[in-house]
Amino acid sequence: MPLPQSYHVHRSIGLIRTPYTRQAPYQPPAAEAGDFKIVLEPRFAEGLYMLDTFKYMYVLYALDRIYVQPASLRLRPPWMPDREVGVFASRSPRRPNPIGLSVVEILEIAGNVIRISPIDAFDGTPVLDIKPYLNLLDAKPDANYGWAGDQGDSEHLALHIKGIPHKH
Amino acid sequence: MPLPQSYHVHRSIGLIRTPYTRQAPYQPPAAEAGDFKIVLEPRFAEGLYMLDTFKYMYVLYALDRIYVQPASLRLRPPWMPDREVGVFASRSPRRPNPIGLSVVEILEIAGNVIRISPIDAFDGTPVLDIKPYLNLLDAKPDANYGWAGDQGDSEHLALHIKGIPHKH
Repeated sequence: MPLPQSYHVHRSIGLIRTPYTRQAPYQPPAAEAGDFKIVLEPRFAEGLYMLDTFKYMYVLYALDRIYVQPASLRLRPPWMPDREVGVFASRSPRRPNPIGLSVVEILEIAGNVIRISPIDAFDGTPVLDIKPYLNLLDAKPDANYGWAGDQGDSEHLALHIKGIPHKH
Repeated sequence: MPLPQSYHVHRSIGLIRTPYTRQAPYQPPAAEAGDFKIVLEPRFAEGLYMLDTFKYMYVLYALDRIYVQPASLRLRPPWMPDREVGVFASRSPRRPNPIGLSVVEILEIAGNVIRISPIDAFDGTPVLDIKPYLNLLDAKPDANYGWAGDQGDSEHLALHIKGIPHKH
């Protein structure tokens, strides 16, 4: 591959299937209706062996509907437009490397298909990797909300973070 | 770029600096001595604005010391060699897309340098992305240990997961 060493090439291993064909929420409502799943290329199905023993997993995916490159280094969160934050202090999909990351619940695995809890990705999004979520490594109960947490009302903040529609 | 659509090209945005030049632990000891930091390319420093308001962040990085491709779809965990698990049910660095993921604590940010808690990556590992870790999205207190958790003794398991040397 005639690319400089600082470039890394990743090939999609499958697709995320969601109800979001034209627009996706910022974060999925917890009680979203619809079918969410990962469909791996059949040749990778063997790599899922024992994944069903985990409750949660990480999905890494290519944010391939985002054509804004180069990405801006500062941005305004859509639900807090008075704020300006750095792109690495945000989960915006418009990033220097458009790689998405979500924690999802593993509901059922059958062959090359993983049924999962809702994920805020477009239907047909290419999957780059799947990793098990391990309590001791990944669950940080003392994690905070950074700049997003100084809005006072944490219940209201939760609606924004989870993308649940509500009145102001 | 003359690549098929299923390929995704990512460019490193900086380097992880660690004491691990020749070998890295499976997971970093929590009390590891040494200096761990992310050194972004200076032109990306502006993207760190407000990241210091978060306690934890994700680091996505290129596992560029792993030359075993194609990756095996099943493997034996080094600390549990009697077990065979699928690559997507493991955090092994030998994966179809060699992208590493770690949750680290943000200790201090100065310019383009982020001082972090220990990370199990080789010195000079290329960074692909940095994302804030948000309590409500990412901290799953009910997460389990999957196949790794059926070893009974959770204190012993913790030593393995955290890579802390111990006698059997």
